[in-house]
Amino acid sequence: MSQPFTFTVTGMTCGHCEAAVRRAIGQLDAAAQVRIDRARHLVEVENASQPREAIAAAIREEGYAVAE
Amino acid sequence: MSQPFTFTVTGMTCGHCEAAVRRAIGQLDAAAQVRIDRARHLVEVENASQPREAIAAAIREEGYAVAE
Repeated sequence: MSQPFTFTVTGMTCGHCEAAVRRAIGQLDAAAQVRIDRARHLVEVENASQPREAIAAAIREEGYAVAE
Repeated sequence: MSQPFTFTVTGMTCGHCEAAVRRAIGQLDAAAQVRIDRARHLVEVENASQPREAIAAAIREEGYAVAE
């Protein structure tokens, strides 16, 4: 298994936002395991089969900012 | 048509929260028309077929505080 991807994601204000980010990543990459620490603005994705940039793009498309 | 109900609802932090409140009211009362002004914490319900307290309860069950 590759190293997890860690993203700094801002704009997730509530549990619905977390769910939206999870869903967006899951639709792109069904095997990915997603952990979110909203207070720290962190999204960690393990077991991804998609490249980091594709996952970042899916998060952005959902309306959240991903720091580089 | 009766007077609209107006609720002061706190905890709606984002558009997903608005959607959750809309959905909760809609599931209780399909005919109700819901307007939400999140910045002002206002939820207005027109054409309700359910009593005010039932609508307030549905909002609370969704996880938001309704001021009396």
